[in-house]
Amino acid sequence: MLRWLTAGESHGPALIGIVEGVPAGVELTSGQIRDALARRRLGYGRGARMKFEQDEVTIMGGVRHGLTQGGPVAIQVGNTEWPKWEQIMSADPVDPAVLADQARNAPLTRPRPGHADFTGMQKYGFDEARPVLERASARETATRVALGTVAAQFLKQLGIELVSHTVSIASVTVPEGRPVPLPKDVLALDADPLRCFDRQTSDAMVAEVDAAHKEGETLGGVVEVLAYGLPPGLGSYVHWDRRLDSRLAAALMGIQAIKGVEVGDGFLTAARRGSAAHDEILKDEDGRIVRQTNRAGGIEGGMSIGQVLRVRAAMKPIATVPRALRTIDVSTGEPAKAHHQRSDVCAVPAAGVVAEAMVALVLAEAVAEKFGGDSVAETQRNLESYLESIPATLDSVGR
Amino acid sequence: MLRWLTAGESHGPALIGIVEGVPAGVELTSGQIRDALARRRLGYGRGARMKFEQDEVTIMGGVRHGLTQGGPVAIQVGNTEWPKWEQIMSADPVDPAVLADQARNAPLTRPRPGHADFTGMQKYGFDEARPVLERASARETATRVALGTVAAQFLKQLGIELVSHTVSIASVTVPEGRPVPLPKDVLALDADPLRCFDRQTSDAMVAEVDAAHKEGETLGGVVEVLAYGLPPGLGSYVHWDRRLDSRLAAALMGIQAIKGVEVGDGFLTAARRGSAAHDEILKDEDGRIVRQTNRAGGIEGGMSIGQVLRVRAAMKPIATVPRALRTIDVSTGEPAKAHHQRSDVCAVPAAGVVAEAMVALVLAEAVAEKFGGDSVAETQRNLESYLESIPATLDSVGR
Amino acid sequence: MLRWLTAGESHGPALIGIVEGVPAGVELTSGQIRDALARRRLGYGRGARMKFEQDEVTIMGGVRHGLTQGGPVAIQVGNTEWPKWEQIMSADPVDPAVLADQARNAPLTRPRPGHADFTGMQKYGFDEARPVLERASARETATRVALGTVAAQFLKQLGIELVSHTVSIASVTVPEGRPVPLPKDVLALDADPLRCFDRQTSDAMVAEVDAAHKEGETLGGVVEVLAYGLPPGLGSYVHWDRRLDSRLAAALMGIQAIKGVEVGDGFLTAARRGSAAHDEILKDEDGRIVRQTNRAGGIEGGMSIGQVLRVRAAMKPIATVPRALRTIDVSTGEPAKAHHQRSDVCAVPAAGVVAEAMVALVLAEAVAEKFGGDSVAETQRNLESYLESIPATLDSVGR
Amino acid sequence: MLRWLTAGESHGPALIGIVEGVPAGVELTSGQIRDALARRRLGYGRGARMKFEQDEVTIMGGVRHGLTQGGPVAIQVGNTEWPKWEQIMSADPVDPAVLADQARNAPLTRPRPGHADFTGMQKYGFDEARPVLERASARETATRVALGTVAAQFLKQLGIELVSHTVSIASVTVPEGRPVPLPKDVLALDADPLRCFDRQTSDAMVAEVDAAHKEGETLGGVVEVLAYGLPPGLGSYVHWDRRLDSRLAAALMGIQAIKGVEVGDGFLTAARRGSAAHDEILKDEDGRIVRQTNRAGGIEGGMSIGQVLRVRAAMKPIATVPRALRTIDVSTGEPAKAHHQRSDVCAVPAAGVVAEAMVALVLAEAVAEKFGGDSVAETQRNLESYLESIPATLDSVGR
Repeated sequence: MLRWLTAGESHGPALIGIVEGVPAGVELTSGQIRDALARRRLGYGRGARMKFEQDEVTIMGGVRHGLTQGGPVAIQVGNTEWPKWEQIMSADPVDPAVLADQARNAPLTRPRPGHADFTGMQKYGFDEARPVLERASARETATRVALGTVAAQFLKQLGIELVSHTVSIASVTVPEGRPVPLPKDVLALDADPLRCFDRQTSDAMVAEVDAAHKEGETLGGVVEVLAYGLPPGLGSYVHWDRRLDSRLAAALMGIQAIKGVEVGDGFLTAARRGSAAHDEILKDEDGRIVRQTNRAGGIEGGMSIGQVLRVRAAMKPIATVPRALRTIDVSTGEPAKAHHQRSDVCAVPAAGVVAEAMVALVLAEAVAEKFGGDSVAETQRNLESYLESIPATLDSVGR
Repeated sequence: MLRWLTAGESHGPALIGIVEGVPAGVELTSGQIRDALARRRLGYGRGARMKFEQDEVTIMGGVRHGLTQGGPVAIQVGNTEWPKWEQIMSADPVDPAVLADQARNAPLTRPRPGHADFTGMQKYGFDEARPVLERASARETATRVALGTVAAQFLKQLGIELVSHTVSIASVTVPEGRPVPLPKDVLALDADPLRCFDRQTSDAMVAEVDAAHKEGETLGGVVEVLAYGLPPGLGSYVHWDRRLDSRLAAALMGIQAIKGVEVGDGFLTAARRGSAAHDEILKDEDGRIVRQTNRAGGIEGGMSIGQVLRVRAAMKPIATVPRALRTIDVSTGEPAKAHHQRSDVCAVPAAGVVAEAMVALVLAEAVAEKFGGDSVAETQRNLESYLESIPATLDSVGR
Repeated sequence: MLRWLTAGESHGPALIGIVEGVPAGVELTSGQIRDALARRRLGYGRGARMKFEQDEVTIMGGVRHGLTQGGPVAIQVGNTEWPKWEQIMSADPVDPAVLADQARNAPLTRPRPGHADFTGMQKYGFDEARPVLERASARETATRVALGTVAAQFLKQLGIELVSHTVSIASVTVPEGRPVPLPKDVLALDADPLRCFDRQTSDAMVAEVDAAHKEGETLGGVVEVLAYGLPPGLGSYVHWDRRLDSRLAAALMGIQAIKGVEVGDGFLTAARRGSAAHDEILKDEDGRIVRQTNRAGGIEGGMSIGQVLRVRAAMKPIATVPRALRTIDVSTGEPAKAHHQRSDVCAVPAAGVVAEAMVALVLAEAVAEKFGGDSVAETQRNLESYLESIPATLDSVGR
Repeated sequence: MLRWLTAGESHGPALIGIVEGVPAGVELTSGQIRDALARRRLGYGRGARMKFEQDEVTIMGGVRHGLTQGGPVAIQVGNTEWPKWEQIMSADPVDPAVLADQARNAPLTRPRPGHADFTGMQKYGFDEARPVLERASARETATRVALGTVAAQFLKQLGIELVSHTVSIASVTVPEGRPVPLPKDVLALDADPLRCFDRQTSDAMVAEVDAAHKEGETLGGVVEVLAYGLPPGLGSYVHWDRRLDSRLAAALMGIQAIKGVEVGDGFLTAARRGSAAHDEILKDEDGRIVRQTNRAGGIEGGMSIGQVLRVRAAMKPIATVPRALRTIDVSTGEPAKAHHQRSDVCAVPAAGVVAEAMVALVLAEAVAEKFGGDSVAETQRNLESYLESIPATLDSVGR
């Protein structure tokens, strides 16, 4: 059982994440987490904040001399802008006179459509949106990426590697049939302005971002996460909430701004006929059991099947639109234009990195569930003996 | 907290479901569950089994004289075909000589692509697929529908009603902009051969099913679930797994054969520009706070916003294709044609009913979480006092 | 992860239990469950119901030909008295005229102190106690014993065996220092009128029950559960709710009428000095690492240490006292004598059997968590390779 | 649903706790947490560390201007000794040459009986005990006290107050029948050297600690937690793990060194006869429904009954005994004396403060479950309307 919680506000002193259930012996450094967070800030179309925002990473517990110790791992991501916000976001009460002077403390009374602002005020009984947006902000995903790094490191030691890439920006889409990136391609992906693996499409995406920027618009898109090296049999068909696809869907849809999720060919599969929708089970020239297609995205019956896992998430355009949307000022009840605080055009590349982190957390949990183990050595031993126990007539792994 | 488990095999004596956490005072009869199960057997394109299959419903616990009692509700769905399977599926050991005589007991050694068969054998160490398909079978969804009825009855007493309908069969799709069905339209939907609300599209769907049937093909499609009467504020933005969209995605993707999930306009939204992707907050003529669009599907920031909830699920074509797919015979290791046991062309209408049940369970849990309550009266009182507490400048409910 | 739910009322058609997360390959028959339930009805001092009550056991799912199949296991325990209660406890509405005739249906308006009756009515909004006592009744423990049998069978295949016995009836207690029963002693224990392993104490217990019976009194007592063959390292110190002692305490205190729980010497340990309170780590003559005492009850740092696990539960006297307690008639608000429906003097021996079932479920979950595995063969392989991996200088297992 | 995780090592940079599920509007300051932590360091018989240990409290998230915001609350408890441990406990790898110089880094190879040391090494595959004791140490309870303060503040706003006190030190016990402390007595309790409410017993406890100190011994004892102002109906009888007593038992037994738990009169009740073991339901002179006794500790049928809640926990003597226990040196396999790092004689008063925190967390969760609510105002409104809904003939609350 892997459990994790994140805490912290967008302009608070720090974000905090704790993940419990990680075996001992996972190789982890704060530098690795820092690198992962830097990837989250990547992407053409991000605004100023991404540039001056520095993620100060401190591992507060659970790791010693580069190895997890079996206990909960706690990671702190400091906010370098904190001095500017120290009073506005102070946990302890602050002299109202001091607060009154600060422009930053002005109540946010024009809730932004597409955000949690309006309903958050209704739900929690707030009279302005500050307490909502501080927590609802996508800045929180920094913690997920930090914790996802722990999961990814664990998986990597077991031979499982993840890759995320951008598939669409608005209507600009990587054409069907282009090769998908491999683990070795990650550096190249990170160097691409939109983390797109297809050069031509990437160029078109840059143009699309530029056009949107000029028009005061924002853009969404689609990201894909691939996992290589998964053993067959993670997840299960025996109960709906043990299904790996169910858990992945929850993890991806649980990311801010995600409105759609697909496994494998997803909605496209629903339009196909049965004979062209599944992945036949064949023998290759060497007598190994293989699939020649991967329409299912590596999951059948809610289980990983030993193929490449492939899932997609659709992100809506950033809801803080420069050409501001209509709303109500809740202090007066009068029509107004929505607050506009951020100037990103597009955060899709970052969403890919976040999606990768979420997938890593789900897979790490599925591995822990099937193989148990209190140390990486133990989990690995159990994983290997499972693969060895598969009889030759069912051996799709090729060991 | 609402928890539920299902048990039972496709050809076992009965399916069993237990749901724990239902308040006292939910009006429920076995007839209502029987009706819900009958709707699950509907749909043009179903095979013979649906016709002779009878769902014998017995409420085994948690309900007295038509009202839930606060304890776990247990529902049994008997299998009228059980006498034919009594020995093959006996829980207790059976004399091998008796079994040897029965054709039905022959090992299933040709796993079907697209099913749990192959990986299920690897994972659990079986040498044939019978134990896998017995539990992986979509027959299990009968229990979900039964438990979903309990949730739906609870919601109904709070003024929340659900509707599901078929949006696509293969590439035949209800055109954009057609009206969505209301709770009053459910009888008409159930009378439609494919539970499609658009008459012309329904006719085209029938033709598509007929064509596929002739070609020995199977079909998938897309279903949509709508929820009317939801209060704002179910789910939350404060932690990813409290988000209502995350939970709905898990519930829908956790249905057999589902490969994609959307909230509101989903993937379409990802292709739009920001100014056309969100639902502006406006005042109508009577001074009420309203939205004129519902692109978000009734969810912002992971919370219900008081609009109609709208989610979609994409179902792949039935994997047991009459024109059988290639596979391996695991008893010999030789190439073979996959088992073919069922002759449904299309189960999409049934998937809509199952999706509706899953959504009902998720919403009932979200209601219980926000409003607490050990009786429907208490939950309702808390719900109403919440709505009354929303100040006029935030009142999107119009009470 | 092992999850389980029970459902059903004391006088309903049947009790139902489902346990999810059991590996495939556990050897289980309905006869074994029937035997376990028969042991629950044992014990000197039980009333008439235990004699005519028959537990009709049916495994409804998850088991085929004597082996679990990896999916949820569902067990039904039928109520042979159901025909007498069919209308009073009917799930579906019953004609009020029919009900009016039945004495059994008279409202229970004199809540019994020590029971859930009074507060149950407040909490769930009932105007009589019938709906409360039907579910709060200890009859529900039959389901726990049934599900505990599944867990115990799983553990047994891994070499782990449980024994429960009665340590005290009221103030009659097995003297300190008497030997504790071993797995081989279970038959003898079951033959003892009070499931007490000390003959002399058992005789005194019988006399105590007889005396209480004459006085119109009821009795409580203390039971102990022992687990043999546990590997070291179940549970953990890394988080409070991973501790095996915490989980055992919840499981035991979660049994009806239990008011105290001890691990090892428990409260006695709190009165000792440090040098006499722990179990020193020694080498025996053969050079093996051993403990000469077991004050800790086999748990240190929230983990099994490879010693015999030993936990105790204190049961209060049956709250339905023949010499009826004072209460209020909630239909009139006037003082009254509490309902008195049952004539057991003492149910402590049964509580031992229930406690054993609860411990089995906790241990099975702890095993699944540490060792993973989707089949007993896989779990066992992982368990053995773990034991083999312990270096000689830490080898307390003696392999 | 209230969830919480703690992280951090005894000599790490800080301990971290996150609690998720706290409503908005709980009044909380870092000063309150600091005060609670100071109470945890109290108690006659504590060693040097308690004196120089300072708990540097920082609220990292979830609280703004003295009020919770509905999101997860994160609290950091800094370690003022960190500079001494920075290299030994560094998360990132450290130059081995640097480490080699540090005496503090010497491997701990003589595991202490009664601690997690020995089994922790077996379980996680460590070759010394440092990684075990760093997390198993009772220092971790500082986080629980910090998080418990959040829960206690929430409860206090609802009129629920907790008190903990020491009932026994070794065999020195508060005599039966002495008055229990009320919320107003907490300052007096905190001023008592052993947080004992009975002056004479406290004096005897001091003498007992002095004697043990001279003998190189350690002592355990028993603490009691009382909760005032609970409404009836928290927890439930409908499923074992909904029972309030079960959850309290888990929470208390989950504290380091606790070996026994009682609700109300606990083990004493098991020795009583039925007519003297329960709390009769009576009418007082003013016609109110009351109990004249509280043997049940305020819980019947797994629910709070509106009486004072009363639970006890038995703590074993500190396992690091100055007169060191026998063990094995795991680097050589030879007999040795156990490590001895700490010189506390007795930590029972601190255990009371920790127990109080754990009870607060359990009660806060039970309140959230029954009453729901996303703000304290909403929870309170729901609580009050529940109490008002109880009919006069069942009104034990006296509103």
